Amino acid sequence: MSATIDRAAIATAFKDIQDGICSSLERLDGGARFREDAWQRDGGGGGRTRVIADGALIEKGGVNFSEVHGELSQQAARALQIEGTAFYATGVSIVLHGSNPWVPTIHMNIRYFEVDGGVRWLGGGIDLTPMYVDEAVARHFHQRLKGVCDAWDPGYYTAYKRWADDYFFLPHRNETRGIGGIFYDRVQPSEREPLDKLFGFTCAVGRLFAPLYAEVADPPRDRAFTERERDWQLLRRGRYVEFNLVHDRGTRFGLETGGRTESILMSLPADARWRYDAQVEPGSPEAATQALLRKGIDWAG
Amino acid sequence: MSATIDRAAIATAFKDIQDGICSSLERLDGGARFREDAWQRDGGGGGRTRVIADGALIEKGGVNFSEVHGELSQQAARALQIEGTAFYATGVSIVLHGSNPWVPTIHMNIRYFEVDGGVRWLGGGIDLTPMYVDEAVARHFHQRLKGVCDAWDPGYYTAYKRWADDYFFLPHRNETRGIGGIFYDRVQPSEREPLDKLFGFTCAVGRLFAPLYAEVADPPRDRAFTERERDWQLLRRGRYVEFNLVHDRGTRFGLETGGRTESILMSLPADARWRYDAQVEPGSPEAATQALLRKGIDWAG
Repeated sequence: MSATIDRAAIATAFKDIQDGICSSLERLDGGARFREDAWQRDGGGGGRTRVIADGALIEKGGVNFSEVHGELSQQAARALQIEGTAFYATGVSIVLHGSNPWVPTIHMNIRYFEVDGGVRWLGGGIDLTPMYVDEAVARHFHQRLKGVCDAWDPGYYTAYKRWADDYFFLPHRNETRGIGGIFYDRVQPSEREPLDKLFGFTCAVGRLFAPLYAEVADPPRDRAFTERERDWQLLRRGRYVEFNLVHDRGTRFGLETGGRTESILMSLPADARWRYDAQVEPGSPEAATQALLRKGIDWAG
Repeated sequence: MSATIDRAAIATAFKDIQDGICSSLERLDGGARFREDAWQRDGGGGGRTRVIADGALIEKGGVNFSEVHGELSQQAARALQIEGTAFYATGVSIVLHGSNPWVPTIHMNIRYFEVDGGVRWLGGGIDLTPMYVDEAVARHFHQRLKGVCDAWDPGYYTAYKRWADDYFFLPHRNETRGIGGIFYDRVQPSEREPLDKLFGFTCAVGRLFAPLYAEVADPPRDRAFTERERDWQLLRRGRYVEFNLVHDRGTRFGLETGGRTESILMSLPADARWRYDAQVEPGSPEAATQALLRKGIDWAG
């Protein structure tokens, strides 16, 4: 069965996932449609950047597919710690920022990478960044991720949940970006992890995205909010910007290697705020959320 | 004369410069005072972070002094490409964001660094980021910088203006952060550049800051503006955030080596905005500014 899983099959599956997600999100949003920018890459390949803005639910977001190939620069090869420079990469990347402060920001990415026809790997994940952590929602979110993980491997959830905790972390703030989720990167096919399993799991993560987002983002979408909650949303988005620009490896790698800037930075929110030494009020909802922005919380347990 | 220019003398001069600038800025602003946070660094030294917010002119800014010493981590020493790990560093860093879109953002930094009592260097600079480039203001700004440079060395302005063009540049946007200014870094004392000259010039840059800011920021402070101009201001601030978090070496070095996060990130604006593929309208004031965000413009000529 593995024999049929080649670049073309993977890219086709990823495009189908992008299509399905965009259709679902347009139905869910009900107020805005995606705008597509098809682009070509000078060195080879291209992509379909799809962005949505000023919707009834989603304030700003993107659901991007790309399939690029060519020669890695020495710099890029060093950054990836690989030998060889002829590469192929395809993936789907999503970030959605809601308008309402009660709607969490979500991120999903699935990716396949190949060098010189030899080394190849898959990666992916979904993570959630609520402005206010609702513990019931956090548990539901992680249980759904655990459900998909468990269907493929009993070890996936524990390993990939920890990986997300470690990855979506801002050392300079000593806090996690949100409540995490699952993350895995550069997983190479092996006897224990044949390509069809890795690929099947990665597609399952992709297909989980749209229903899972609806489950966590639809219920609070029309909930009333105050200026204080809007202010907190903007400050939390400032942290999101900090993570993406300072730490996120995909963002930094893309910007440093001449990726398409507008497609990469679609992940940034419409508006973000910084205030010197912003402190949460003890006992407040903001303080409760701040206390939950740490690694190692067993949400699915 | 050089014999008297030691760490203590430099730190004292820098603190005096900070004091003078804060007094001048409070008089200029007329609506807000600085708040000081004195802080200690675990490994040695500390600083005086002074921030101002919601003023009549300045929406958000900081005038920070720090004097730190201790042992550099291996990582930090590698990043600085130096041997030796016992270091001493002192400096003044300023960023001021105006409320009004016609008021430019300004940045100033002067710094002294010493390793193991051997290698030592000075650095500094002032650069300006207008939301809308007023060419007369840009010429005045650069001529004032050239005046101070020329008083110390006929070669400084040309060299340090080019250095600023190269440093304050966003490769992923192919644009400069603003209209530049002067920038110099890691200049070591030598026969041609004795310490008293380097230090004298650096202090002159520091003392130029307050009057120069008043000259460029005070005239437009009450000028009426539209929603469109406010929107453009927010988008330009998004680019400022991108520069500081993705490219600025001081910011990245500080965050990576456990610097005081709130002091480092005082440079970020109160509010910033991103919009997918934001384009300027041909022939508009925004397009005119965009066309001037490039290297090599001879503003002082």
